[in-house]
Amino acid sequence: MSCNLRHPKRRRGPGLGGGLMAGFALVAVSTPAQAAIPDETAYVFNTFSFLVHGFLVLWMAAGFAMLESGLVRTKSVTTILLKNIALFSIAGIAFYLVGYNLMYREVEGGFLGSLAVWSADDAAALAGDYGAGYAAASDWFFQMVFVATAASIVSGALAERVKLWPFLGFVVLLTAVIYPIQGAWHWGGGWLSELGFVDFAGSTLVHSVGGWAALCGAVIVGARRGRYGPDGKVAPMPGSSLPLATLGTFILWLGWLGFNGGSQLALGSAADAVAVSNIYVNTTMASACGVMAAMGLNQLTTGRVDLTMALNGALAGLVSITAGPDSASVGAACLIGAVGGGLVVVCTPLLDRLRIDDVVGAIPVHLLAGIWGTLAVTFTNPEASLAIQALGIAAVGLFVSTLSTLVWLALKVTVRLRLTEVGEALGVDEVETGMRAYPEFSVAPSSS
Amino acid sequence: MSCNLRHPKRRRGPGLGGGLMAGFALVAVSTPAQAAIPDETAYVFNTFSFLVHGFLVLWMAAGFAMLESGLVRTKSVTTILLKNIALFSIAGIAFYLVGYNLMYREVEGGFLGSLAVWSADDAAALAGDYGAGYAAASDWFFQMVFVATAASIVSGALAERVKLWPFLGFVVLLTAVIYPIQGAWHWGGGWLSELGFVDFAGSTLVHSVGGWAALCGAVIVGARRGRYGPDGKVAPMPGSSLPLATLGTFILWLGWLGFNGGSQLALGSAADAVAVSNIYVNTTMASACGVMAAMGLNQLTTGRVDLTMALNGALAGLVSITAGPDSASVGAACLIGAVGGGLVVVCTPLLDRLRIDDVVGAIPVHLLAGIWGTLAVTFTNPEASLAIQALGIAAVGLFVSTLSTLVWLALKVTVRLRLTEVGEALGVDEVETGMRAYPEFSVAPSSS
Amino acid sequence: MSCNLRHPKRRRGPGLGGGLMAGFALVAVSTPAQAAIPDETAYVFNTFSFLVHGFLVLWMAAGFAMLESGLVRTKSVTTILLKNIALFSIAGIAFYLVGYNLMYREVEGGFLGSLAVWSADDAAALAGDYGAGYAAASDWFFQMVFVATAASIVSGALAERVKLWPFLGFVVLLTAVIYPIQGAWHWGGGWLSELGFVDFAGSTLVHSVGGWAALCGAVIVGARRGRYGPDGKVAPMPGSSLPLATLGTFILWLGWLGFNGGSQLALGSAADAVAVSNIYVNTTMASACGVMAAMGLNQLTTGRVDLTMALNGALAGLVSITAGPDSASVGAACLIGAVGGGLVVVCTPLLDRLRIDDVVGAIPVHLLAGIWGTLAVTFTNPEASLAIQALGIAAVGLFVSTLSTLVWLALKVTVRLRLTEVGEALGVDEVETGMRAYPEFSVAPSSS
Repeated sequence: MSCNLRHPKRRRGPGLGGGLMAGFALVAVSTPAQAAIPDETAYVFNTFSFLVHGFLVLWMAAGFAMLESGLVRTKSVTTILLKNIALFSIAGIAFYLVGYNLMYREVEGGFLGSLAVWSADDAAALAGDYGAGYAAASDWFFQMVFVATAASIVSGALAERVKLWPFLGFVVLLTAVIYPIQGAWHWGGGWLSELGFVDFAGSTLVHSVGGWAALCGAVIVGARRGRYGPDGKVAPMPGSSLPLATLGTFILWLGWLGFNGGSQLALGSAADAVAVSNIYVNTTMASACGVMAAMGLNQLTTGRVDLTMALNGALAGLVSITAGPDSASVGAACLIGAVGGGLVVVCTPLLDRLRIDDVVGAIPVHLLAGIWGTLAVTFTNPEASLAIQALGIAAVGLFVSTLSTLVWLALKVTVRLRLTEVGEALGVDEVETGMRAYPEFSVAPSSS
Repeated sequence: MSCNLRHPKRRRGPGLGGGLMAGFALVAVSTPAQAAIPDETAYVFNTFSFLVHGFLVLWMAAGFAMLESGLVRTKSVTTILLKNIALFSIAGIAFYLVGYNLMYREVEGGFLGSLAVWSADDAAALAGDYGAGYAAASDWFFQMVFVATAASIVSGALAERVKLWPFLGFVVLLTAVIYPIQGAWHWGGGWLSELGFVDFAGSTLVHSVGGWAALCGAVIVGARRGRYGPDGKVAPMPGSSLPLATLGTFILWLGWLGFNGGSQLALGSAADAVAVSNIYVNTTMASACGVMAAMGLNQLTTGRVDLTMALNGALAGLVSITAGPDSASVGAACLIGAVGGGLVVVCTPLLDRLRIDDVVGAIPVHLLAGIWGTLAVTFTNPEASLAIQALGIAAVGLFVSTLSTLVWLALKVTVRLRLTEVGEALGVDEVETGMRAYPEFSVAPSSS
Repeated sequence: MSCNLRHPKRRRGPGLGGGLMAGFALVAVSTPAQAAIPDETAYVFNTFSFLVHGFLVLWMAAGFAMLESGLVRTKSVTTILLKNIALFSIAGIAFYLVGYNLMYREVEGGFLGSLAVWSADDAAALAGDYGAGYAAASDWFFQMVFVATAASIVSGALAERVKLWPFLGFVVLLTAVIYPIQGAWHWGGGWLSELGFVDFAGSTLVHSVGGWAALCGAVIVGARRGRYGPDGKVAPMPGSSLPLATLGTFILWLGWLGFNGGSQLALGSAADAVAVSNIYVNTTMASACGVMAAMGLNQLTTGRVDLTMALNGALAGLVSITAGPDSASVGAACLIGAVGGGLVVVCTPLLDRLRIDDVVGAIPVHLLAGIWGTLAVTFTNPEASLAIQALGIAAVGLFVSTLSTLVWLALKVTVRLRLTEVGEALGVDEVETGMRAYPEFSVAPSSS
């Protein structure tokens, strides 16, 4: 059984702890003398792990909503909240109707699965055969919250100028088609997994997918009006509520334990329990070191610390470790996370120099740190090769960029993507929802 | 064993997965050849399920606090926060002193249990007999957070004009007497359960109970001054913070997985694990479809999308599926949730036409969607009959409305329920707590 | 095996439920006839308990961030957020590099462990010997989030006038040295545990440690300028956002279930499941009674209810029960929590009379209620002696105060601890980060 196969439906038996073995390949493990955990007990453990870790990932939807509503200006808060709850809903429906089976059903070596509405089949388990390893719906739930995460990444980058329904139209295609197809290549058991690509929990398959979609959208939609002056100056457009942005970051940090920990896909053996525990520690430490690296670098280069850099440092640390939280030692996780945090500090201004207006920093955090994390697996996992990792990054990037560009352009041509100049000056909330997020607070006139 | 019995203390053995069997009645399940999960292991699984799902439901207290504080005006935020933390505390104390045993102890066929302070008795389990199925305190904890939920529903509807301590007095009676007695009828094994009423996790027993109490209170207390003009115009009184309202909704969504998932009352077998997993998916999808139905209907009828409709659509979807998340297919859960979401969009203006001032939309969300969900069980669960479902809804409604009305009227006559005209103009925060929620932000004069 | 030993690494075998036995010492428990839960199954249960309860405690970091950002003034919000995410990160790194092994490795009877970077060793479990009881990293994760909690307590008390980096310097020493050494005395198996000191989850070892460090810091740093007038008047400096403070309290309440429940350190037997369930109920009820006691006392003495008193009442109830949530009956937990809540109402004004400016009330909540809770164990746990409890409180207090004072003074002398007068008037956010937390809201001039 290849340890590189990840997230394959019923491909990988429960309790094998393959991810762990890959990471500590030097540890010789003899077969336990004691009888293993009985199948039905393991079945319940595995299922419970999917449910608990899945609800943590579902909770990340709230994290993105808070992060993004804190980082946009007051006049755009209502719409970004609406986008976040709508995109989660759409992701669920699309993954149910199309996405899951496109990603996981009968992919073997190919490029995509089959077109079919998903339904749970647990007849075998209910008849006493626990070979499936976990309840079908627990797996679906866990995979679904992942696709919602990918969609969440996009909304923040394009905030404040994209119209509501066209954006949601993009989300339909992203979650029903684009994400599932590239997901099939690796987690569905397709060609990338057969080549030996390693992406444990989705630095590439989830985070850089969202990042590519966001990057293409940001370029096609264009910057917020007034953001970039003719003289090359970048007008600061500070976020409306840093407590909400911080809350969102803490929610994402918590949710990430489910994102990475649950991606072990099993908790039905001591080996799995050890693996998940190591993943929790590596995830936490990569984030901690991402924070401190971003703060330190920020202090050294500017003489002060920008809170949003610390927050994005945490997130970049998390994205960075996501491709290999099972195989890294704690020290390696620290370094990988620290580099991710540093990347944010260095690359955020570069995007502005390219006049790519990424409102929340989604591109450095999810795309750049996602690429870094996927490459960094080669330092900690002897089964990963730099060439194959680079190939996977490039293939997914090319595929997602191409399709995203086509969808964004089609929306731009057909229904228009962005607000009119007047509408943007009024604010997207006024135009799209007619509701102000904080109707009673006096807002400084200069900021609207 | 009747599958309709829900939440009965030690009535239903762990690991039988009866709820699931009812829902997929066509699936023939043979007895597993393999030995079942040993009793003590199942005991730990069941207990851990109560604890984990219980803490998710406890977390819903924060959700209601955020939702309501976001939807009231700035001058009423402090008091609604205070009410929310106090009502949770009162619910716990009342359920400990009176409520739990009134609901669950020696109800069998009757109308109420016994008057006694609750205490855990785990002597059998500690002596090696695991027949109780789970630790007594884990069950108590799980049931207690349910009664707190019912109380939380009331506070929002009556916000901005009800005095603090009279409201808390109502909460004492609701949580010590009203909720437990009607709860005894079904979950305590009383007459409704013997008739075959089906309410898996409380569309009626929790949500419509809160909804009836809120409706009676809103009628008796009357609308906020200035809300309804003499010309029939409804003065908009927009909520002070939509990010908080959205955060509250996401918290409730997360908590609902515990609310419905934990109501399987067991996780000690593969059948239970399958059932809980299906419940998670149905709960999530009903909510997702509630959001999209509310948004779509809102867009079609008004040309824009009101964020609060999307939020209440999510909640109505959740309430709707709560009576039968175990028996619905995913497609059925989607439809049930979508109808719930649509109900909110249609019924919220009707309440205003009746001059019933429900500040947060608790009545459409919890009462109307609760009724709908309880009726909808008949589509997915062959054991449910429309007549019995309607009887249960009516009996609970009549009982709760009558007692709530008496209590609200008694409070109105004895200690006065609402603020004076001057007090209401100043705001409930100024009068009842002397603390402003956002003391440093300048508030537009028109809004106070 | 002494039941007083708490949190010792691999000292206490899983599934023994010693904490419970101590609490209900009168219950005679015969050996179960049925075979116990198999070792590997217990290993997974124990590990999963550490992970789930650990992520709840990690979530408390968000709770402190929200509580503190809600209770400081607008001009200090950004910095307190930054401090909270940074201190969590530092705590993790320090505990990894130094703290954990100083606290837990080879302490036996002595005063401190050994100087070594922590690494997980699960070779035995992976080879089939499950005697360790749980995965090493799950234990590390659970212990690490505790040290972060201790550090979180300090930031709030000193808010609005302490500089960022000097504060973080203190956190390094607190989490790498001060906390671990005193922790070794009891949980590490050192001299206090050998004497029979009882502190189940850290009323003294965590909460009063944070409280002592905060008290020393508050005295050395001094009050916010303008807080105490020459006439003895206390200038009110109300918090900027009560919804955030309330959210923080609910987060902490939820997290505390993990804090206390996970401190059973095991979930691999029915006895452990019973113990953890009782702990959940006691923790919840102590908090509920803390709220009601604080509200009632506040109403009686001032004629109104201060929301922050209710919030701190909840927290004081939680701190109070933390030393003995395993041994108290529910009624005892209620009383212990109520006294804690009452202490807050009584002692908060006393601190102001001493001109100790504790911005968020951390000293009454964590220090005074922590002392009370540690003494109250003697009422519920026959193994606890008042003299030894008092000795433990005094020894920890003396040690932490002395070292904290030295560190604070050293920082004061070398790098200056607090802002200049001009800087404090401008606000710590302006000086230290250059970012306003709510840049678009107009802030009343009087409040800045």
